[in-house]
Amino acid sequence: MPDSVPSDSVGIVSPQTIAFNTPLELACGQTLEEYELVVETYGTLNEDASNAVLICHALSGHHHAAGYHCADDRKPGWWDSCIGPGKPIDTNRFFVVSLNNLGGCHGSTGPSSINPATGKPYGPDFPVITVTDWVHSQARLADRLGIQQWAAVVGGSLGGMQAMQWSLSYPDRLRHAVIIASTPKLSAQNIAFNEVARQAITSDTEFHDGRYYDFDTVPRRGLMLARMVGHITYLSDASMGEKFGRELREEAFKFGYDAEFQVESYLRYQGERFSETFDANTYLLMTRALDYFDPAWHTEGDLARALTPATCEYLVLSFSTDWRFSPARSEEMVNAMISARKKVSYAEVDAPWGHDAFLIPTPRYTDIFTAYMGRVARETGA
Amino acid sequence: MPDSVPSDSVGIVSPQTIAFNTPLELACGQTLEEYELVVETYGTLNEDASNAVLICHALSGHHHAAGYHCADDRKPGWWDSCIGPGKPIDTNRFFVVSLNNLGGCHGSTGPSSINPATGKPYGPDFPVITVTDWVHSQARLADRLGIQQWAAVVGGSLGGMQAMQWSLSYPDRLRHAVIIASTPKLSAQNIAFNEVARQAITSDTEFHDGRYYDFDTVPRRGLMLARMVGHITYLSDASMGEKFGRELREEAFKFGYDAEFQVESYLRYQGERFSETFDANTYLLMTRALDYFDPAWHTEGDLARALTPATCEYLVLSFSTDWRFSPARSEEMVNAMISARKKVSYAEVDAPWGHDAFLIPTPRYTDIFTAYMGRVARETGA
Repeated sequence: MPDSVPSDSVGIVSPQTIAFNTPLELACGQTLEEYELVVETYGTLNEDASNAVLICHALSGHHHAAGYHCADDRKPGWWDSCIGPGKPIDTNRFFVVSLNNLGGCHGSTGPSSINPATGKPYGPDFPVITVTDWVHSQARLADRLGIQQWAAVVGGSLGGMQAMQWSLSYPDRLRHAVIIASTPKLSAQNIAFNEVARQAITSDTEFHDGRYYDFDTVPRRGLMLARMVGHITYLSDASMGEKFGRELREEAFKFGYDAEFQVESYLRYQGERFSETFDANTYLLMTRALDYFDPAWHTEGDLARALTPATCEYLVLSFSTDWRFSPARSEEMVNAMISARKKVSYAEVDAPWGHDAFLIPTPRYTDIFTAYMGRVARETGA
Repeated sequence: MPDSVPSDSVGIVSPQTIAFNTPLELACGQTLEEYELVVETYGTLNEDASNAVLICHALSGHHHAAGYHCADDRKPGWWDSCIGPGKPIDTNRFFVVSLNNLGGCHGSTGPSSINPATGKPYGPDFPVITVTDWVHSQARLADRLGIQQWAAVVGGSLGGMQAMQWSLSYPDRLRHAVIIASTPKLSAQNIAFNEVARQAITSDTEFHDGRYYDFDTVPRRGLMLARMVGHITYLSDASMGEKFGRELREEAFKFGYDAEFQVESYLRYQGERFSETFDANTYLLMTRALDYFDPAWHTEGDLARALTPATCEYLVLSFSTDWRFSPARSEEMVNAMISARKKVSYAEVDAPWGHDAFLIPTPRYTDIFTAYMGRVARETGA
């Protein structure tokens, strides 16, 4: 953290754990009898609870979206650029709720949690969770917090899928859905990259069929590879080129297979760091949630028809160099929304950073996001 | 093979092994005292040896470019679509030479060959080979075959890099260089994908620091992952979508991590098959040859200046949906060739198959390639 709390930061924040004891029926047919969600909130809920904004996280995200956990924290929460006083999601006006999703590995009940039935970590016995399951669990969280209707549900990437699903599963419980750098469903190429990541994890000899906790080990190499391949898809070719080019770490080729190019050591470092902090079973689960998401599954691929129940207003944003979920994928959504006669605002933002652009403030992105959320605030009395 | 040899096939062909005993100095500083190259030839060398065409292969290629090894062969050589009587590289006119590169695993001396110094497979002691080293070894092959000057040196992808390097290392030993779906150097993203592949292989517990031959095993899972991630980059998002979409293997989600989508089982199958036939150390070597290729390395990145020695004529071809080596990368080459006042013909061919398009005949590709090679034949008396 900087020496003093920046004026546009939510400051020091503390997560809280909320326990749920009503069984949750899941899409897979299994039921989770009890579970916990770890949550952070920023700002103040107003009297009629009309100013609440839900933040949905992406593949490797968690509840810590803004501010610092302590004065020694080197970095703030993952979306601190967009959440805080005067920022697009203005905590002077909104009460912001951010959670670690079910199946996560940052405190909410997931594969690494103790299964009450066995007294051991769930591991591979933890059920596969879908985007719809998350939305149901988030609706219970809203109940618990006394929030009948969100001013907005907001998310990037996999988080955007949750925002879209909210508009279909609980149409009268949100006024706005903000869907950033997302897609109405994965392409075959998207699924293929996920499959490589899963194969890397499950083929690691330390994976032990997902019961690595019992062996006091983790499939570190597999997770590292999964993160490396994922990371490439988060960046644009151009931004990688600008950041690393073909720069060598030393002056000449070494004619071997150690990391020689800067991009190699960067990727290895990212992969290694990730493999020390993220749970492999959660990674599998998150990628499968991505694969399965397809709101038009039950309408023979007709997304406009799938959107029929929605009553909220949408903001859809995409980024010009995002090749993971390209602007064309956002436009599929927007076109379906227009066909279905929904209210939708759309912008493709020019930004060089590929998919990661949704995490990086740029003037146009910030301006559009701020303007839209300002309108949400005015409409909802926030 | 079909019941009878098709009229546009070179028919049944046999590889031959050619031994070299003059030490070959390599870019890495090591010297290969002796080595063998496996070669196939198609067509007949004319009296003044002016009709020879050299085929350079890509990452996983080999000497068997056209025809069948026996009547039971299910598939012909890897570039049979372009080599044969009446095909773009017309074996009625040209004498075609195709080899397995040094460091390969299809018969030419490589990491899995016996190191005469130890009586064991080279493994990690096999030197890192560069594109320039290959060109030098191919020049000796030309000497042995009595070919002073190639009518054309032709290659796709990594093969195209060899064609370009020929024009710089031995300018008066080729009349034409045909560079297809290639690039003047890898981008950071290209290197990053190679690095994921290498990490997958070297982190496999069966890799044994490259001495897996001694342990009677192979890093099968690592090679499989390397191939899976490579394969994704060979196809376009659209062609994967067309081929597999989000099709399931069964009717409903199974809510697990087994292969459920068609694209998952396809990739696994491709990866598994590859891991049974390809050598892991060769894969490392081929990817490093790709990484290192950069003819403008010695001219401070000025490719036009690097091209100064070239005297051949160039044909450069790219494919619209190739995102591994996009048309923009070919255009970098073409622009440098024009700046350097070289003769160059260029076409970007519309084709949906991504990088793999160079292996797949399409009318425009075939027409341009045929027309150009026809001119080569007329000019060289082939």
